[in-house]
Amino acid sequence: MSDDEAARHRAKMEKRKAVQDAEVAEKTIEKGLLIVHTGPGKGKSTAAFGLMLRALGRGWRVGVVQYIKGAWETGERFALDRFADQVEWHTMGEGFTWETQDRDRDVAAARAAWARTEALMADPAIRLLVLDELNIALRYDYLPLAEVVEALSRRRPDLHVVVTGRNAKPELIAAADLVTEMAVVKHHFAAGVKAQEGIEF
Amino acid sequence: MSDDEAARHRAKMEKRKAVQDAEVAEKTIEKGLLIVHTGPGKGKSTAAFGLMLRALGRGWRVGVVQYIKGAWETGERFALDRFADQVEWHTMGEGFTWETQDRDRDVAAARAAWARTEALMADPAIRLLVLDELNIALRYDYLPLAEVVEALSRRRPDLHVVVTGRNAKPELIAAADLVTEMAVVKHHFAAGVKAQEGIEF
Repeated sequence: MSDDEAARHRAKMEKRKAVQDAEVAEKTIEKGLLIVHTGPGKGKSTAAFGLMLRALGRGWRVGVVQYIKGAWETGERFALDRFADQVEWHTMGEGFTWETQDRDRDVAAARAAWARTEALMADPAIRLLVLDELNIALRYDYLPLAEVVEALSRRRPDLHVVVTGRNAKPELIAAADLVTEMAVVKHHFAAGVKAQEGIEF
Repeated sequence: MSDDEAARHRAKMEKRKAVQDAEVAEKTIEKGLLIVHTGPGKGKSTAAFGLMLRALGRGWRVGVVQYIKGAWETGERFALDRFADQVEWHTMGEGFTWETQDRDRDVAAARAAWARTEALMADPAIRLLVLDELNIALRYDYLPLAEVVEALSRRRPDLHVVVTGRNAKPELIAAADLVTEMAVVKHHFAAGVKAQEGIEF
């Protein structure tokens, strides 16, 4: 790169940094976020798990309620064993609805999971709460949507909540602070590759 | 729910389960995946981090090369300290390009990171390799795209590689097994909320 080019690059990046710094300076609010990971792509629960570990790294106490049993797997559990004193984990669901084939049982499991969620929301020691696959329970009307959204909206000001699962309800998205949609660009299952230990579970 | 409705639900779910089971049975290939997390939304690095911890939970040895310094933060580092014997971590980058304001330095840092990547790819003990923000280095032509894609494509058959960062190159997407695009539906920064400890870093 010539001196001239280097100088132009520097000038351009100086401007960009000024814009960046100004943007950061504008943001002053601190609050517990309602975060939603939705969409058909991979990474919804995995990103929640990553977020959880960042919080654990910060020494926080974290709660997890799994609305669908089996959605999180052995790999995660083993990893979280290293943080056993910081994690309160509840597997409440009964497997995917096509596994149980019993709607009443699914509804009962979802209600029990919601009762557990409310207890964790009321526990001031918990700073991050992951509600894994809650969107599925809402999608199939296993839980009253308005009540769930209302309870999540009046969470403690310092509590972060992450909700995962496809087909997030518009009412939940409206109440959320941060919503990411995971889209499939390309999936190895379509090429006949199976779910593998260490990657999918 | 009436007995009739319950029976119909059961029959529907039985069918769905049969389809699901058949789909799973079709997938028989096991291979090291080339995974790409791209898109403007959040969760690209966080999902890679979650994937890493799943692999660590399985007892794997994992490598990380950070192409941009500061893209992963203290929270992650603290969490990974619990797996110090399983993680080989290299922070090679120099900060975002608008921080360094020096293209030659950025290029040199990217090349050093790539040399480190090649060494980790050649180490048979490593089963998962995270190349965080490599897409940024490719986007700014800090590295020769064809060479990088070719090297990733001829990785060991049992090595999984995760590449993160916005604007993944089409050539990389073509070579990948699994590509997820993280899209922004809603972002709290837009509402003036700042980056917070335990969530963003």
